[in-house]
Amino acid sequence: MSSEATEERVLAAVGERRELVNAAIDEDLPMAEPERLYEAARYLLKAGGKRLRPTVSLLAAEAIADVAPLSADYRSFPAVDDTEVDVMAAAVSLEVIQSFTLIHDDIMDDDDLRRGVPAVHKAYDTETAILAGDTLYSKAFEIMTETGARPEHGLEAMRMLASTCTQICEGQALDVQFESETDVLPEEYLDMVEHKTAVLYGAAAAIPAILLGADDDVVEALYNYGIDSGRAFQIQDDVLDLTVPSDKLGKQRGSDIVENKETLITLHARQQGLDVDALVDSESVETVTEAEIEDAVARLEDVGSIDYARQTAHDLTEQSKERLDVLPDNEARDLLCDIADYLVTRGY
Amino acid sequence: MSSEATEERVLAAVGERRELVNAAIDEDLPMAEPERLYEAARYLLKAGGKRLRPTVSLLAAEAIADVAPLSADYRSFPAVDDTEVDVMAAAVSLEVIQSFTLIHDDIMDDDDLRRGVPAVHKAYDTETAILAGDTLYSKAFEIMTETGARPEHGLEAMRMLASTCTQICEGQALDVQFESETDVLPEEYLDMVEHKTAVLYGAAAAIPAILLGADDDVVEALYNYGIDSGRAFQIQDDVLDLTVPSDKLGKQRGSDIVENKETLITLHARQQGLDVDALVDSESVETVTEAEIEDAVARLEDVGSIDYARQTAHDLTEQSKERLDVLPDNEARDLLCDIADYLVTRGY
Repeated sequence: MSSEATEERVLAAVGERRELVNAAIDEDLPMAEPERLYEAARYLLKAGGKRLRPTVSLLAAEAIADVAPLSADYRSFPAVDDTEVDVMAAAVSLEVIQSFTLIHDDIMDDDDLRRGVPAVHKAYDTETAILAGDTLYSKAFEIMTETGARPEHGLEAMRMLASTCTQICEGQALDVQFESETDVLPEEYLDMVEHKTAVLYGAAAAIPAILLGADDDVVEALYNYGIDSGRAFQIQDDVLDLTVPSDKLGKQRGSDIVENKETLITLHARQQGLDVDALVDSESVETVTEAEIEDAVARLEDVGSIDYARQTAHDLTEQSKERLDVLPDNEARDLLCDIADYLVTRGY
Repeated sequence: MSSEATEERVLAAVGERRELVNAAIDEDLPMAEPERLYEAARYLLKAGGKRLRPTVSLLAAEAIADVAPLSADYRSFPAVDDTEVDVMAAAVSLEVIQSFTLIHDDIMDDDDLRRGVPAVHKAYDTETAILAGDTLYSKAFEIMTETGARPEHGLEAMRMLASTCTQICEGQALDVQFESETDVLPEEYLDMVEHKTAVLYGAAAAIPAILLGADDDVVEALYNYGIDSGRAFQIQDDVLDLTVPSDKLGKQRGSDIVENKETLITLHARQQGLDVDALVDSESVETVTEAEIEDAVARLEDVGSIDYARQTAHDLTEQSKERLDVLPDNEARDLLCDIADYLVTRGY
């Protein structure tokens, strides 16, 4: 199958659900007092986003229930035990968590822009941004209590949501820590990526399974599907930073190596004995030349580091799709496989 | 009963439980990787604190179960429905939430000191402090899922914990907003205080009742006990700021009026037509004189504003104690009443 056809199917699946997800976000996280706080909290959610994680949640529910995509009401979705579950609330909860992490990450990294608009701490102020993030955090937990699932399943979903948030914090702390270390092992880097990025995909895929009362092996398979594809996604991001032209990337190509940010690629290259610190002379993305980047990429290619990253992402993607074999063979499952492929084949 | 005897009983009750609570915090929030993150997250909890909220939780459990104080194991406490509940985990969870709010509040207010040690963002850095707070936030939710209570009660406790956190954020945002407004009504101020401070006392008292399977009227009574006494506590804080000598207060007496911070007292005085903005000429706590403060306090006394605050705190305290009439008459209930009294009679 061509990656264009995969991308088309994924974007269609996401597009078909985006309006539903956006409406649900508005319902489950309505404007409230104090107004400025809730405006700031809702600001990034209003600014856009593909809604990839909510789509994963909704498709996971459909794959488990073995129903045709978009045929059942996400707000009263048929559980395995004949109760009805608001899987949309779970999807919203995870998107709200994602938004909270973006707001706080942007403060920590002092990033000015997010989704093409000023970051929340720039559009408002740092105090409001901290508080807006904190509000989204608790709102996500509030929303997750309202799925109508059986209490033991609801509580188990809360447990996964909470431990996922803890792991995201740990991942962010590791990321900061690794910035000042050059002897990080590729395995440690992958562990950081898992904490920082992949666990939220894992939770997005597994929480609907928990809420619907699916068997433990289904919950675990979906969780690992999310972990594997989330890791692949992040590694592919590192590859794209080096291989996609700046104009398509929307930022200077090779910014990671200019800014001495360690990735799976540079860590592998170090293991091959390459002097990664000497790859580019320029010290800022403003002064680096395209020739410098070309040369650096060629040297990373020579020691096999870019292929290593590509291969790792590819293997993780294949593994993530195999995880889904426990699910019934249906259209929703196929779309989850397409999403895994899309995460590593997307051009930028 | 004298307030000295009350204080003695409260400090004894708190003291008898502090080591248990501290040991439980260490168990439920152990050191983990990345080390620096968990050191920062545990730093304020290690720096001290009375453990008043956990004590409220533990006493509430004992009052409901009608057992002698300290006679039952807090880790496997007898519930109404014969299951066993880890009420200590709930107490720890609430203390962890309290610690998270202090860390983020100190960043927002750029306060240097907390509990006699540098604030977390000073001892570490702002990025680490944001992340340490975020980690405590999710850890509190994780801990609350592990009480062993019946799932429907566990889920209900999570619901109250989440909505409590949302309200704390709303209260903090209102507090910031009110700093730039002079036409805040006393009722609005009390509403802010309820959100910012009192809801955590409400949750500390009510969550054990939820977990133990107590009747709804008991849950509600304990929640309102916490709300009323928490509001009284905050109002008393405002009175103490004006009436306790600086050396006992540990900071400049009257700092609220010097820094133009609105309190129930100033808002009441404004309603009486007093020009609150002209109460002191000095614009910083470094330059203000004791005579200026004396004079300002006298003028606030003249219009009855300090008495109004004292009376409001007193009425709320009486109301909070009456709420407990639904509980069996026992020593733990008496101690909860003592705590309500202590919150408004403590000298500083």
